[in-house]
Amino acid sequence: MDHAGRRERLRLGLPDVDALLVTSLTNTRYLTGFSGSHGAVLVTARASDDRLGTDFRYVTQVETECPGIDVVVDRDAAAALAAYAVGLGVGRLGIEGAHLSVAARDSLAMSQPGVELVSTTGVVESLRIAKDDDELAALEEACRLSDVGLAALLPEVRPGLTERQVARRLENLMLDAGADAISFETIVAAGPHSAIPHHSPTDRPIEVGDLLKIDFGALHAGYHADQTRTFVVGRGPEQWQAELHALVAEAQRAGREALAVGASYAEVDDAARSVIRDAGHAERFGHGLGHGVGLDIHEAPFVGAAADGILGDRTPVTVEPGVYLPGRGGVRIEDTLVVRTGGPVSLTRTTRELLVL
Amino acid sequence: MDHAGRRERLRLGLPDVDALLVTSLTNTRYLTGFSGSHGAVLVTARASDDRLGTDFRYVTQVETECPGIDVVVDRDAAAALAAYAVGLGVGRLGIEGAHLSVAARDSLAMSQPGVELVSTTGVVESLRIAKDDDELAALEEACRLSDVGLAALLPEVRPGLTERQVARRLENLMLDAGADAISFETIVAAGPHSAIPHHSPTDRPIEVGDLLKIDFGALHAGYHADQTRTFVVGRGPEQWQAELHALVAEAQRAGREALAVGASYAEVDDAARSVIRDAGHAERFGHGLGHGVGLDIHEAPFVGAAADGILGDRTPVTVEPGVYLPGRGGVRIEDTLVVRTGGPVSLTRTTRELLVL
Repeated sequence: MDHAGRRERLRLGLPDVDALLVTSLTNTRYLTGFSGSHGAVLVTARASDDRLGTDFRYVTQVETECPGIDVVVDRDAAAALAAYAVGLGVGRLGIEGAHLSVAARDSLAMSQPGVELVSTTGVVESLRIAKDDDELAALEEACRLSDVGLAALLPEVRPGLTERQVARRLENLMLDAGADAISFETIVAAGPHSAIPHHSPTDRPIEVGDLLKIDFGALHAGYHADQTRTFVVGRGPEQWQAELHALVAEAQRAGREALAVGASYAEVDDAARSVIRDAGHAERFGHGLGHGVGLDIHEAPFVGAAADGILGDRTPVTVEPGVYLPGRGGVRIEDTLVVRTGGPVSLTRTTRELLVL
Repeated sequence: MDHAGRRERLRLGLPDVDALLVTSLTNTRYLTGFSGSHGAVLVTARASDDRLGTDFRYVTQVETECPGIDVVVDRDAAAALAAYAVGLGVGRLGIEGAHLSVAARDSLAMSQPGVELVSTTGVVESLRIAKDDDELAALEEACRLSDVGLAALLPEVRPGLTERQVARRLENLMLDAGADAISFETIVAAGPHSAIPHHSPTDRPIEVGDLLKIDFGALHAGYHADQTRTFVVGRGPEQWQAELHALVAEAQRAGREALAVGASYAEVDDAARSVIRDAGHAERFGHGLGHGVGLDIHEAPFVGAAADGILGDRTPVTVEPGVYLPGRGGVRIEDTLVVRTGGPVSLTRTTRELLVL
């Protein structure tokens, strides 16, 4: 991946600071390739002055992962980079306000009294919205591994298995397929639990006639897949289940079709939401329509009614409307798609029909 | 667990503030029992004024988990609690400086200009060092589940299995035994990889004669077990392997035996470290001797050469010396123990002998 090019783009768009101290591990990985647990990067006015900071545990790893940037090794990477920045003559040092703690900022201010710390938010995150080819390839592979895991799971699902058993089995199948890890804690929600948008799997056995909502994904090379499907188990759907599923599928289709370069987040959200609203379920769809995915499972852009902005090319987003009927059940259908000038491309490819397992 | 009692202890020890806004999810769980992903708690001068903040997703859950405290429901729990505190007449509002981001603090200051935000660190963490009976029981169970998982794994280990396969198998065995989850990312490091203190499992197959270092633990009711054992695979140990293991075992024994109420962190560290130093390997033991465990896998106290403080009763800590010979292999032996007035109690109970698998 072209980490040096990303640092160049950041350098050209630096806010009114002499250098930016990036302490978010995800942003550090985006800008350098470093995947360890303690690191930070300083992006300055000149490429040759940029530095990656990490501690002694990662000295070998950074040689492999981050060939294009010099390294400062210290137990406190952020403090060492701030000191290095002062040595360069940096007067206004940007910090990542959403990621640096108050105590860490105060500690930097104490140890480097000569520098002005300027809180910034979303600087690197906004660069990360449009993905390059390498990122799209990694995300596509993560989504493929998710589809493979789900395809292997479905023939095994039957009444009597617990939510936790199904979740563990799916996770193992994704790992068997080659996933580096799971993308986030798997949601398996059966029967009335399917009405809870973010339900942690329990020891409740799946019963005949249950709706079964599964929200899951594989992680590949740092990139996160995100997919949800809702099934019915053990017998054909009751009428209300079929209608609920058809409604959400229709809303999801409308949302997917609204994904276009230049479309506003709010209008994409409304394309799906209006379908649910017209069916009288506006209050049963309490979350946003979707979110960006990449090095984080949830990242910019956030696609919702109150969101401000328009979709750009090469932007992966989820489209995940849901309708949740408390005490009865809920349906959510979610894909990870990429917004492209030629039209959206769905990276998750399991059928969206209502399957009976 | 006695969450109300914990809030009382905090109330009695509040630093120079009128109320403390606790935004760390772990500290919030400690003080209220809340286990969701978005919550905060305000501890005030009067118990009846305390409030738990969370969002609409957790309204049902908090009724079960947190019966003894009133709840404020808002999309931004911290902001809502700060506004509530101002309504109570709070003038000096403590915040958790190590957990609140600069941007979140600035946002609170903007929305509540009348209140003085006072950064504190370690207030709740220091209460958490000594565990009550319920906590010790949860930790003991987590450690038991770890022992059960390892006992089931060992007969299956053989040359040809990869590090990742062994890690996944151990994780599944702990889950089979009843663990809620794994305590942290399992370390399985074979051959030269065992010389890397924190090694992520790879697809490298275990070879005959490899040292095999496994650092792992089960999670139970929020409490984290932590144990490391180092084995040799496929044939009896070479002399250097046996000597290295014996050295680390002797250092670990010395560290365990130094655990006493009133012992300083530095002297406990030195009890183990001096054994390794006397053997000429001081530079091959680059990390601290151990750390507290509880609701976090790493928490206060931190037992190291530069640490300041003394051990108290009811304090779980790890004792985990290691010697790492780059390119050859390393040995670490780690237990989770509880410091008690009658002497330390080891909660992890797998033999510390050098087993041949």
